[in-house]
Amino acid sequence: MNTLEEVNDFVHHGHQEYLPHVSIDPVIFGYYQQKLKILLLRWKGLDGWGLPGGFIKRREPLSQAAYRILHEKTNLSDLFLQQFHVFGDSPYRVQERSGREYKEKFGLEVEPDNWLLERTLSIGYFALVDYSKVSVTTDYFTEDYYWFDVSDIPPLLFDQNETVEKALLTLRLQIYHQPIGYNLLPEKFTIPEIHTLYETILGKELDQRNFSKKLIALGLIKKLDERRSIGAHRSPFLYQFEKEQYEQALQEGIMHTY
Amino acid sequence: MNTLEEVNDFVHHGHQEYLPHVSIDPVIFGYYQQKLKILLLRWKGLDGWGLPGGFIKRREPLSQAAYRILHEKTNLSDLFLQQFHVFGDSPYRVQERSGREYKEKFGLEVEPDNWLLERTLSIGYFALVDYSKVSVTTDYFTEDYYWFDVSDIPPLLFDQNETVEKALLTLRLQIYHQPIGYNLLPEKFTIPEIHTLYETILGKELDQRNFSKKLIALGLIKKLDERRSIGAHRSPFLYQFEKEQYEQALQEGIMHTY
Repeated sequence: MNTLEEVNDFVHHGHQEYLPHVSIDPVIFGYYQQKLKILLLRWKGLDGWGLPGGFIKRREPLSQAAYRILHEKTNLSDLFLQQFHVFGDSPYRVQERSGREYKEKFGLEVEPDNWLLERTLSIGYFALVDYSKVSVTTDYFTEDYYWFDVSDIPPLLFDQNETVEKALLTLRLQIYHQPIGYNLLPEKFTIPEIHTLYETILGKELDQRNFSKKLIALGLIKKLDERRSIGAHRSPFLYQFEKEQYEQALQEGIMHTY
Repeated sequence: MNTLEEVNDFVHHGHQEYLPHVSIDPVIFGYYQQKLKILLLRWKGLDGWGLPGGFIKRREPLSQAAYRILHEKTNLSDLFLQQFHVFGDSPYRVQERSGREYKEKFGLEVEPDNWLLERTLSIGYFALVDYSKVSVTTDYFTEDYYWFDVSDIPPLLFDQNETVEKALLTLRLQIYHQPIGYNLLPEKFTIPEIHTLYETILGKELDQRNFSKKLIALGLIKKLDERRSIGAHRSPFLYQFEKEQYEQALQEGIMHTY
């Protein structure tokens, strides 16, 4: 979609290709060197930052749509997207929209019963990646992107601040019962490394000794019979995520082996 | 909706009142005396058991729709429904449906572009209640209801066996990080009581001593300075859910106080 003609076609005939009433809005968390950030796009014509969202094709499986949208909007692929919530309660998600902004921003006349003005529920997905390894490419609709610190998210389009808050809440809940950070650490890591990761994600300090004891008690990590040699008198033990045990537990629906 | 005329109206004009493409399907778990069951309805004309589902009104907040649908279909109210997943990947959730069954079951002619035949995503909700306290009333569409044991769920309509499985998985994950059973136990309970509840929900045996130690370590329950008098030489200590601490933690997005 690179011309006004194509945008016009999307607005007036997009309902033939896409399901109305439901959008997908991915929240991409990026971690690197003790910082947790979120990927936001600046949408052309909309004067604000927002999530890389889009619509589901009429015969497209839901998860496939989430990956396609993210890839189209950011060029990101090969990351594990996890569905976390459907938003349909806020006033913005209950009402219809006005066609006025299409007229003002794009000079498009939009009929009152246009599919893009109808009530739209939003399905939230999230992922956690190492943002130093990510190269984002914006598309025609988006003129810029930026990794915002989670403690400094600007006012977002629509109700998307709520989406980001709920994604962060879910991420913070899940790090204690899913090996969610395993792709952000070396395969074998030290306690200070995972401690820093968890402090960053949770946004607060954790007592290091209790922290590691609990992670082991929960069956999330295990201590290896191996050390890393850092200096003359420093060779901390290495640890590993209990990833297989976790995946099996998830399959069986039982997370902790009490 | 009590006559064929009203059903006809729903089929042909329901899209004016309801959003197409999205349904809500609640999974109601019932616990009583060491049994975990699920409430299923037998739908008139559909020859099978299914969830008490329905559609969202065009200007109705999503959560409100979930409560309304459950109440209309079962007469249940005042229970905490929790959204857990949107289903949109299975072949059934990607394709359109056939109008043939409306003709065969109800003698209704349904036009090929009817809203009820369109692709429909399903939003799953679940709740956990004491089923001995519940009185279910079926409506016009449903001719019977039954609490099925979770280990003995019959083949359900559409893709609803997947919905039930995912709900059970979510319930089992959440009992370790939400006070999900607090309305199923007395306010002050003994370790054997909560132990039985958790064994029933998880469907497996748990070592009682380790179990109680972990629940306390997780900050989920606390030991009271109080005992229950059962017999001459039996007066076990009482425990209580750390409900307030949990709700606060949930608000803050941090579940465990490591």
